[in-house]
Amino acid sequence: MSHYIAPVKDMLFVVNELAGLDQVGRLPGCEEVTPDLVEAILDEAGRFAGEVLAPLNFSGDREGARWHDRQVAMPAGFKAAYTQFAESGWTALGCDPEFGGQGLPQLVSAPVREMWKSANMAFSLCPMLTNGAIEALEIAGSAEQKRMYLPKMVSGEWTGTMNLTEPQAGSDLAAIRSRAEPQADGTYKIFGQKIFITYGEHDMVDNIIHLVLARLPDAPEGVKGISLFVVPKYIVNADGSLGDRNDAYCVSIEHKLGIHASPTCVMAFGDNGGAVGTLVGKPNEGLKTMFIMMNAARYAVGLEGLALSERAYQKALGYARERIQSRAIEGSPVPVAIVHHPDIRRMLMLMKSQTEAMRALAYVVAAAQDAATRHGEEAERRRNQAFVDLMIPVVKGWLTETSNEVAYLGVQVHGGMGFIEETGAAQHMRDARITTIYEGTTGIQANDLIGRKIAREGGATLKAVIDLMRQTLAETGRQDGAEFKALAATLGEGIDALAAAGDYLVAQYGTDVRAVAAGAVPFLRLMGIVAGGWMMARAALAAQAKVAGGDGDPFFPAKIATARFYGDHLLVQAQGLAREIIHGGVSTLAVPEEMLG
Amino acid sequence: MSHYIAPVKDMLFVVNELAGLDQVGRLPGCEEVTPDLVEAILDEAGRFAGEVLAPLNFSGDREGARWHDRQVAMPAGFKAAYTQFAESGWTALGCDPEFGGQGLPQLVSAPVREMWKSANMAFSLCPMLTNGAIEALEIAGSAEQKRMYLPKMVSGEWTGTMNLTEPQAGSDLAAIRSRAEPQADGTYKIFGQKIFITYGEHDMVDNIIHLVLARLPDAPEGVKGISLFVVPKYIVNADGSLGDRNDAYCVSIEHKLGIHASPTCVMAFGDNGGAVGTLVGKPNEGLKTMFIMMNAARYAVGLEGLALSERAYQKALGYARERIQSRAIEGSPVPVAIVHHPDIRRMLMLMKSQTEAMRALAYVVAAAQDAATRHGEEAERRRNQAFVDLMIPVVKGWLTETSNEVAYLGVQVHGGMGFIEETGAAQHMRDARITTIYEGTTGIQANDLIGRKIAREGGATLKAVIDLMRQTLAETGRQDGAEFKALAATLGEGIDALAAAGDYLVAQYGTDVRAVAAGAVPFLRLMGIVAGGWMMARAALAAQAKVAGGDGDPFFPAKIATARFYGDHLLVQAQGLAREIIHGGVSTLAVPEEMLG
Repeated sequence: MSHYIAPVKDMLFVVNELAGLDQVGRLPGCEEVTPDLVEAILDEAGRFAGEVLAPLNFSGDREGARWHDRQVAMPAGFKAAYTQFAESGWTALGCDPEFGGQGLPQLVSAPVREMWKSANMAFSLCPMLTNGAIEALEIAGSAEQKRMYLPKMVSGEWTGTMNLTEPQAGSDLAAIRSRAEPQADGTYKIFGQKIFITYGEHDMVDNIIHLVLARLPDAPEGVKGISLFVVPKYIVNADGSLGDRNDAYCVSIEHKLGIHASPTCVMAFGDNGGAVGTLVGKPNEGLKTMFIMMNAARYAVGLEGLALSERAYQKALGYARERIQSRAIEGSPVPVAIVHHPDIRRMLMLMKSQTEAMRALAYVVAAAQDAATRHGEEAERRRNQAFVDLMIPVVKGWLTETSNEVAYLGVQVHGGMGFIEETGAAQHMRDARITTIYEGTTGIQANDLIGRKIAREGGATLKAVIDLMRQTLAETGRQDGAEFKALAATLGEGIDALAAAGDYLVAQYGTDVRAVAAGAVPFLRLMGIVAGGWMMARAALAAQAKVAGGDGDPFFPAKIATARFYGDHLLVQAQGLAREIIHGGVSTLAVPEEMLG
Repeated sequence: MSHYIAPVKDMLFVVNELAGLDQVGRLPGCEEVTPDLVEAILDEAGRFAGEVLAPLNFSGDREGARWHDRQVAMPAGFKAAYTQFAESGWTALGCDPEFGGQGLPQLVSAPVREMWKSANMAFSLCPMLTNGAIEALEIAGSAEQKRMYLPKMVSGEWTGTMNLTEPQAGSDLAAIRSRAEPQADGTYKIFGQKIFITYGEHDMVDNIIHLVLARLPDAPEGVKGISLFVVPKYIVNADGSLGDRNDAYCVSIEHKLGIHASPTCVMAFGDNGGAVGTLVGKPNEGLKTMFIMMNAARYAVGLEGLALSERAYQKALGYARERIQSRAIEGSPVPVAIVHHPDIRRMLMLMKSQTEAMRALAYVVAAAQDAATRHGEEAERRRNQAFVDLMIPVVKGWLTETSNEVAYLGVQVHGGMGFIEETGAAQHMRDARITTIYEGTTGIQANDLIGRKIAREGGATLKAVIDLMRQTLAETGRQDGAEFKALAATLGEGIDALAAAGDYLVAQYGTDVRAVAAGAVPFLRLMGIVAGGWMMARAALAAQAKVAGGDGDPFFPAKIATARFYGDHLLVQAQGLAREIIHGGVSTLAVPEEMLG
């Protein structure tokens, strides 16, 4: 099956040249985060990803997680890999040192997590969900809850889950019906069914810590009546040992299009008298905690899009170099490797350039998250948080949608072999398909972007970001050479299109919200494409500085050429998208519902 | 599982108003093809598709074809359905009356075939491949071969296959190595392995007639040394009864992403002494016959794209109407059906409008095929054939690529349920994935389009088609109302973009073929989008004529609104595509191959 080689060189380029590791290294608590340390971590993580996790990706897909009698058996090799993963300290990378974590900044954990997701997305969901549960307890847990659960979750000895969705409550958590009954001892009995619970049950660890949304008896209706509970699979005794089996069982797992090795569980709480849980945070404020966590969760899914794109690209490039088929269109004495055919090259460049653009945007947002939480000055924290808040739906929505296109192209490069499951290209496409859906569909990201993140503040942060883009554009325009001229032209048009579409939606959101919302996803796409172009222009400028400084590494001219390609093939879509956004709302809503079919 | 309701109303609208059934009905041999007859046929086919074939689509996918000991067992119900299909005369619909066919024109068989493909694509591949084999024998078979094979293939008693691909010969048939040794009795012994042979083995009929490409001993190398042979599974005796089992065996079947019920076979010819075959046509002219058939095969795969889009749309619309989730963005007292949410509506309209545009283009090309083969005047035959030749790669490439986007959106409309296989939406996405690959990848279609179909004749037919488009544009511009104004604007831009891109490629093809070829697929997409817009404008004009004539059917205003949507959301992409085509070739090829990763 296919290999995975962590793209450490491009990762370090982005970390150092675009995301500003030097500045992150000056943040409180990050003083030891030097370029050398980061390189050593990425090298080590890359080895683990390539040698331990990647080889289980295909076999895990074929075997899948298997449910029997309320238990879930993971595919062969997963438990051993997980144990090694935890023992190597990878679960603790970004966690709070108070509970055993290494406290590394997002800018370091982002590339490391990208590697896990590239190597084995289904595996990576287990630590990802555990991280979410850790964060929820860090945000809102009592000292006792933190002491009881966090050290073993950080060490990876236990894993965690997030139990939100119910059959009638998917995107709309207001519809949650699970209930919690207060007990005399201060605990609660939890009753209800949850669906789509990632790693809700598995056999890799001794205990699983479920975080569960449910309603108290006197709770108000809707989103203001939802509380958060921690419900361990095994009750934890005061001395930390495991006690009784709790009444929280996996009653089935889903048969899914992809991520077969990741068990997606239907969880039944309280079918045998009630699952014992304790309240996390205040009554009826469960969604508040969830919303704080949401940025992290959405960002992590965005990283999945990046990671799958990288993996799909590596696989397609490898095949294109090996597969000999047909003579060259300009003539050749013998058939050539298909990488030589212009359309194959176009597909590979689409994959490569978008993957690099996604990586740059994702890591820049990671660095902003670090500044938003750690910077010494309140104004800097606030400015960075505004940037992060604006960009999270773009990272989630654009990276995941793009990854589906990239994985689709990966299959296409393989021709007929792409349709054969043994090749492995199709798995990336199947795995990618969930990323635009969970943690909020692309439509939900786009509504968040245009509503909460832009219209509500009159487009202030968007305008500030567009100003930054224009600074990059000006610098691009000052460079010599055809690449920079072409890139400046396409980037300029892209920024203009984004600005026009942004002005439109700020102006019209209050007047005709349905027509504006009809353009929400095209706007998210436009913003992703232009932000990606901005990042590629910054990358080209950084590369040009290296070239000007006498660095002869061919990586830098290739980066500049890739940036130009991105402009010629992606940024040229911007004006059409702006027109769709600005003029397309009326016709989206014009056909009456009963005439749709 | 999901239902399928044949969209007879839209089919008849296209057949009558856009594809010119009245004119087809005046062609020799088509005198009985009246609107009433066509409606009766479509109604009957729609019933069969909905009641017999559609219910087996999901179960066929889950069960799949199973290989054991060189035999293939079809999923439950398939054999009975096939028998009923043949006994009802559906296999004979478009075939030559001389061999028992009904001789109906393409304009009638196209919508009928669309139904089979919508209802059960995996099933439909069996008669589709049989049709290909029938056509090959009709084109090049001897009188004896025709007498021996055609009546039972037309009646559906036997099925047929096309054996082209070998492991080293996928897109490049020049690399074929299978060989044929002449025998004293005038037959040949065939040796070689073929892969990706659709329905190469199955248990629905008594005999399977394989058409096989192979080389004679003295054949020249490359494409000029390939001959075509007919190799039945069971030798047919002179009296028509079945004789010995031939040495042609299915040695395995592929485990594929989709179309699980369609067995994709590895065929071994001659492993036990040689498979007995007879030569079809002249020695070394096998590819010539294949090329004549190719239009039909590529057109048929294009229809698959249309058909899967229709099915995916019906499924998504049904779910969107049933699923209640979240309040309306403009405010609502209670949660609403998701069809009310603007982004869901946008996705549904993208699915609907593109499906309708694809259907219109496909049927118009079907009518042109009828005129190209049946018209009494040579000039008309030639004019129509030129149109067909130009449009075949667009029908194949654009319809199939679009169907993948449509099926992708279909999953997205379902949210989390779309990722669960039991829902069925994912199957359409999996099934669609092969359509851009087999019968020539999109890249191969696009190279055919820009090279053989456009550059070689200096763009003459393209220019003639653009003139027709401009006539429609002028008529669109003369209509009153916001819909037509908007549509005229976007269609005008689209036509201009297509014309500019066409001029570029005609001018540059001889000078810098690699840079031009780098834009081949974007050009195919541009041509598809603009041709679809042309068709939607014609549809809107036809609908407007009905409205003006006092017809109160809401179908017509909905068609006009859908056409405008198509312009606002699809045609607006045209100018960006033209820029990509005209300016993007250099950057596609700029990064040296060794620097791709």
